Amino acid sequence: QGILERLDAGEIVIGDGGFVFALEKRGYVKAGPWTPEATVEHPEAVRQLHREFLRAGSNVLQTFTFYASEDKLENRGNYVAEKLSCQKVNEAACDIAREVANEGDALVAGGVSQTPSYLSCKDKAEVKAVFRKQLDVFMKKNVDFLIAEYFEHVEEAVWAVEVLKESGKPVAATMCIGPEGDMHGVTPGQCAVQLVKAGASIVGVNCHFDPDTCLETVRLMKEGLQAAKLKAHLMSQPLAFHTPDCGKQGFIDLPEFPFGLEPRIVTRWDIQKYARKAYDLGIRYIGGCCGFEPYHVRAIAEELASHRGFLPEASEKHGSWGESLSMHTKPWVRARARKEYWENLKPASGRPYCPSMSKPDGWGVTKGARELMQQKEATSEQQLKELFQKQK
Amino acid sequence: QGILERLDAGEIVIGDGGFVFALEKRGYVKAGPWTPEATVEHPEAVRQLHREFLRAGSNVLQTFTFYASEDKLENRGNYVAEKLSCQKVNEAACDIAREVANEGDALVAGGVSQTPSYLSCKDKAEVKAVFRKQLDVFMKKNVDFLIAEYFEHVEEAVWAVEVLKESGKPVAATMCIGPEGDMHGVTPGQCAVQLVKAGASIVGVNCHFDPDTCLETVRLMKEGLQAAKLKAHLMSQPLAFHTPDCGKQGFIDLPEFPFGLEPRIVTRWDIQKYARKAYDLGIRYIGGCCGFEPYHVRAIAEELASHRGFLPEASEKHGSWGESLSMHTKPWVRARARKEYWENLKPASGRPYCPSMSKPDGWGVTKGARELMQQKEATSEQQLKELFQKQK
Amino acid sequence: QGILERLDAGEIVIGDGGFVFALEKRGYVKAGPWTPEATVEHPEAVRQLHREFLRAGSNVLQTFTFYASEDKLENRGNYVAEKLSCQKVNEAACDIAREVANEGDALVAGGVSQTPSYLSCKDKAEVKAVFRKQLDVFMKKNVDFLIAEYFEHVEEAVWAVEVLKESGKPVAATMCIGPEGDMHGVTPGQCAVQLVKAGASIVGVNCHFDPDTCLETVRLMKEGLQAAKLKAHLMSQPLAFHTPDCGKQGFIDLPEFPFGLEPRIVTRWDIQKYARKAYDLGIRYIGGCCGFEPYHVRAIAEELASHRGFLPEASEKHGSWGESLSMHTKPWVRARARKEYWENLKPASGRPYCPSMSKPDGWGVTKGARELMQQKEATSEQQLKELFQKQK
Amino acid sequence: QGILERLDAGEIVIGDGGFVFALEKRGYVKAGPWTPEATVEHPEAVRQLHREFLRAGSNVLQTFTFYASEDKLENRGNYVAEKLSCQKVNEAACDIAREVANEGDALVAGGVSQTPSYLSCKDKAEVKAVFRKQLDVFMKKNVDFLIAEYFEHVEEAVWAVEVLKESGKPVAATMCIGPEGDMHGVTPGQCAVQLVKAGASIVGVNCHFDPDTCLETVRLMKEGLQAAKLKAHLMSQPLAFHTPDCGKQGFIDLPEFPFGLEPRIVTRWDIQKYARKAYDLGIRYIGGCCGFEPYHVRAIAEELASHRGFLPEASEKHGSWGESLSMHTKPWVRARARKEYWENLKPASGRPYCPSMSKPDGWGVTKGARELMQQKEATSEQQLKELFQKQK
Repeated sequence: QGILERLDAGEIVIGDGGFVFALEKRGYVKAGPWTPEATVEHPEAVRQLHREFLRAGSNVLQTFTFYASEDKLENRGNYVAEKLSCQKVNEAACDIAREVANEGDALVAGGVSQTPSYLSCKDKAEVKAVFRKQLDVFMKKNVDFLIAEYFEHVEEAVWAVEVLKESGKPVAATMCIGPEGDMHGVTPGQCAVQLVKAGASIVGVNCHFDPDTCLETVRLMKEGLQAAKLKAHLMSQPLAFHTPDCGKQGFIDLPEFPFGLEPRIVTRWDIQKYARKAYDLGIRYIGGCCGFEPYHVRAIAEELASHRGFLPEASEKHGSWGESLSMHTKPWVRARARKEYWENLKPASGRPYCPSMSKPDGWGVTKGARELMQQKEATSEQQLKELFQKQK
Repeated sequence: QGILERLDAGEIVIGDGGFVFALEKRGYVKAGPWTPEATVEHPEAVRQLHREFLRAGSNVLQTFTFYASEDKLENRGNYVAEKLSCQKVNEAACDIAREVANEGDALVAGGVSQTPSYLSCKDKAEVKAVFRKQLDVFMKKNVDFLIAEYFEHVEEAVWAVEVLKESGKPVAATMCIGPEGDMHGVTPGQCAVQLVKAGASIVGVNCHFDPDTCLETVRLMKEGLQAAKLKAHLMSQPLAFHTPDCGKQGFIDLPEFPFGLEPRIVTRWDIQKYARKAYDLGIRYIGGCCGFEPYHVRAIAEELASHRGFLPEASEKHGSWGESLSMHTKPWVRARARKEYWENLKPASGRPYCPSMSKPDGWGVTKGARELMQQKEATSEQQLKELFQKQK
Repeated sequence: QGILERLDAGEIVIGDGGFVFALEKRGYVKAGPWTPEATVEHPEAVRQLHREFLRAGSNVLQTFTFYASEDKLENRGNYVAEKLSCQKVNEAACDIAREVANEGDALVAGGVSQTPSYLSCKDKAEVKAVFRKQLDVFMKKNVDFLIAEYFEHVEEAVWAVEVLKESGKPVAATMCIGPEGDMHGVTPGQCAVQLVKAGASIVGVNCHFDPDTCLETVRLMKEGLQAAKLKAHLMSQPLAFHTPDCGKQGFIDLPEFPFGLEPRIVTRWDIQKYARKAYDLGIRYIGGCCGFEPYHVRAIAEELASHRGFLPEASEKHGSWGESLSMHTKPWVRARARKEYWENLKPASGRPYCPSMSKPDGWGVTKGARELMQQKEATSEQQLKELFQKQK
Repeated sequence: QGILERLDAGEIVIGDGGFVFALEKRGYVKAGPWTPEATVEHPEAVRQLHREFLRAGSNVLQTFTFYASEDKLENRGNYVAEKLSCQKVNEAACDIAREVANEGDALVAGGVSQTPSYLSCKDKAEVKAVFRKQLDVFMKKNVDFLIAEYFEHVEEAVWAVEVLKESGKPVAATMCIGPEGDMHGVTPGQCAVQLVKAGASIVGVNCHFDPDTCLETVRLMKEGLQAAKLKAHLMSQPLAFHTPDCGKQGFIDLPEFPFGLEPRIVTRWDIQKYARKAYDLGIRYIGGCCGFEPYHVRAIAEELASHRGFLPEASEKHGSWGESLSMHTKPWVRARARKEYWENLKPASGRPYCPSMSKPDGWGVTKGARELMQQKEATSEQQLKELFQKQK
């Protein structure tokens, strides 16, 4: 059954987790460029991660094609061996995802994300051509549906959806924005409306913010759609990091990004709360983004198991709410084998010299710069740099 | 070249990371029993993790045989399918480790750890028989050397070393103790002396405590050996969690163990500091235990690259001290591409309702119970329970 | 010179600090009732506190008549000896304030605050009669001007201003509200407009929130006045506690109120930042409320000394920015005798088991209850109780 | 009845709080010099503070003669007007204390503390002459007993006790040390033994450390006395600041000293716990030092009221364990009117950008310097400075 059949039937669809962060820690992706050449260089590592998400309960395997547009790969040329053409990287990603999907009951989704072309003010035709190049591969490899994700500007997201819709396949679209809206100041509600009008059947958010913030953003999207009398399925794929102290552009502006985020990593119990809230909000496509490891995805599947009627395969290695501790030799560890314990735990950081909150860099603290940023003219690299220098 | 030839020549030997924690998050190990049946059930997952550590710079691949003694596996029978005999699990572990070791320049170490037999007061002959059963597999599969690790009682560790020495292969021995010594009150210095006298060529600590605490314990071991005019190589394999608030039995007694430890996870920069301190202390076998992911091991290899003369393979996907951020589009993120930034960062937890420290359960807070625990009589399951009740 | 002559001439007027909190710690006021019977019972204690604020730089000494309305004192009858009539308490307060004011260059302000009569839904005439009773004393004792302070409902504040204006003396009016406005949902801007239209020459906020929050509220009041083309002097008298985690009703709903607020106490340097920000915002009547001790008031006077041309008397016992440490015997303490040190210090709490933020009780967390609270009908004691039970 | 009659009869004697810190906040003492010229300049302020402590339950009023030795006052000459001779300051202190003591049932204790003469290596005769000068005043004014307090070196404390004993009056002696002992490395136990042998009838600690640390130090003193078969009454007067992160020299080396200590201030409930622990440890002279305000002293008196049979006068303005909140209009504030609430509260700091712990400056972190410091030769100002520079 396709993605829309499942959602239309009221099923919960569980997404997967964040490949670039997980594979960076495993040694296959470079932080900074964040490009997915591992699909060609180390397919066994990509395959294993897909498999772990499948086992954890994912119903969708996204092709590992994040930042795999031709302009991005060229941009990062010094990191990616020349022989790795955009086409090869995307094709390998499709093949690996399909191979693992066939081991279970998962769909393969081909994904595109924001492009350097848009940020450097290329025109609509040029930007669309970039998306179309990836789409050609997805069609050749016959993915099950398409996702346009990680867009900071709804204008670019709309262009992406328009291209993907040319395929005739279902399209999901998510933006990496918070409740304040996109980088031009378009509200979440307006973004959702534009994406649905462009052809997206599923809309929501991914990345940049923690679960609570993402759910608030999706709630605003839902309100916007209702006000416009539009219908779409809702989707959320947040970070697995606590980021209450983020500014408008999310976790990238936090001082800890990307190499000091460890104390912010959410627990499996945080994710169970997230899954419950997402469900109660009417979201039925529930997944994760950067920071989500297989055990986080399993936590979604376990929280919603009563609605779905089954547990994921990986739950054979996980007792509900800590029950696997009930045989521990120490009585006080056995006492942790219950839901109330883990629900109410306020975990310590073991870091008495560290604060609990950070002040974000960049737009987060520079009001003037933020306002200028919202004007389209200011978004080129050189202009940003000058603005920032002025603000300092 | 064997382990002793390397260490005698002054080489740095880099260990690997913690399999049970890493594979628990990937969905292949159950927290609580922590047994390694994945070697038979999901060899591809074990193989991939070995490969990641190898790529990250590990010179030793430990067979995934933690808690794979026959008495432990039987004890956990309801988790492990009957068909998985102790022999099969251990053999598969050896085969997988050897297969991956052959992809690079790594040694295979067969490992044994503390047994339920000792804790339930079986006699010396019975406990030794348990170790011998695993040793038979290691000899059949011809591992390169042997490790006795994760012992809380030096008496049991000595018995393990004596058995392993029957093989004629080099033996390393580590205890999961802190500066206060083993559970009978034997100091780290005395533990080291007893282990060397029993035949260990390499001694140190693993698990239960954070890097700083482990290094302090190894320092005390070193002092003990010097006072006794004994020589041995030093080894450390700490947790990748900050645990300054631990009691004598380490992180197991922290309220966050094992499902809420996320905010304590160390960064790669914490590990670089650890590697440097370990080196300065004269430790030459430097690895990790629970919580260590491949990127933590890579951090050891990168910190010590100038001494070793080369970087690990996985450093192709990692710039030194954040240099891969130097091409980021945001100027304030580019400003993070330098050593001073990451060295001095005090990472926030994003958890303003959580404390920085916890009070440990169990022995950590119950002085009377701790004293009784140090008497051998008190270590049976039922007695512990009664003691604990009395203390409450 | 009177209060308006000073403000009209552009002078900075420094208020005093919080009497009920300071005298509670000194043993003369009971937390809970917070009534000022100490003016009769222990005049020497009240006199000494006035004197300390005068020495610290206060230009206004408020009569210690907080909660000294007849209905409040009767309400709290079991705490206050019967012989202490409302009249006696208010008269003694005026006498003490005048006595100390005469020791320097300070004005005496008679103060009224919110009444139980209003909260129990008495009508306008009855509530006004309560204020008029205190005003009679103020006129007899010939205070210099009048302050209506600590109002949660602008309606009651307007009634108070109307009564006080009958005297012909200048009237200042402050509300204990945050940026969300009063308990009926009237915005800060609207509150300011109503107060000025009722006759207040000076408007602003006091109590319930920390300096940053109070300044934001005054900023909104200023905007409201500008939009309405009204003119008034601005005034702020915040808490000396950090309360970023407050809900709409301020620090009373924080779990630490009133006996565990110590870790939130602001430093003198926090107050210097507050004084600077208040000045930059155009506020010229700058003082404090609960938590403000004499050294906090001195910090206002020191920060603004360059604008005023003089330091307060108590600065003879205080070096600017820590300069009195420059003769310390320890070099590292001498290194603290400079502005940069204290400006940038992030002071630790020494409380590793405590969080940095709290979740407020009551309205703070119960959205439905908050909405009902905004309806006038819900404000009687019994109704509140029922509502709260329902919300739980 | 005298101090020894009370203690010998098993009575609890409650000390007072810290004058220099309390009067610094009130504007009468300068941080840095910390000298008590206020006894002459502003006697009403000193009198009022004595009175508040008396009301709070203090049985002893210490003359405000801290750092009032002639060499100290001369040293700080630029702060203290020339006309204020050592004699005048000390005489005024005695007169004020006696005046207030006569208002209740309190004893007057004349106090001496460590001298610049000792630190600059003057010989025994010279140092003793300094103490004798203050003693002359105490004898002339006929104080009830004598206290030698705030000594970092037991040698100087012994000299002080020997001088004070010449008077024939009872002598108490406290050191400002922690469990690591005095600055020459003499253990707490040895310090206590030396002080008792020199003639002290009461020994203990004051200042520099928080209640828990001080109690541990007194416990070690008690052990030392028992081992030496000596008898003495025990006394503790700790800081009212949480300082678990202190080094050997206490809170002076904390980065927050003295102007950023607010988040460390203990609550009244912390003090009740302290009073209970002190009592259980056998301490019967229980007071406080820097940071102790009258309400902290009252907390000692309230915690031990059942043993003493009465409450202090100031308890008329304080309900036990928050009971004065039981009439609050908000139900959730009324819910705080109980012991369990305040006993278990973990108060938040409202400071999410601040850490919970600090790293102390100076000896706290510089091991080499600390060792050298323990040699007598290193204690002159110039030598300290050089040592510190070398250590950096």
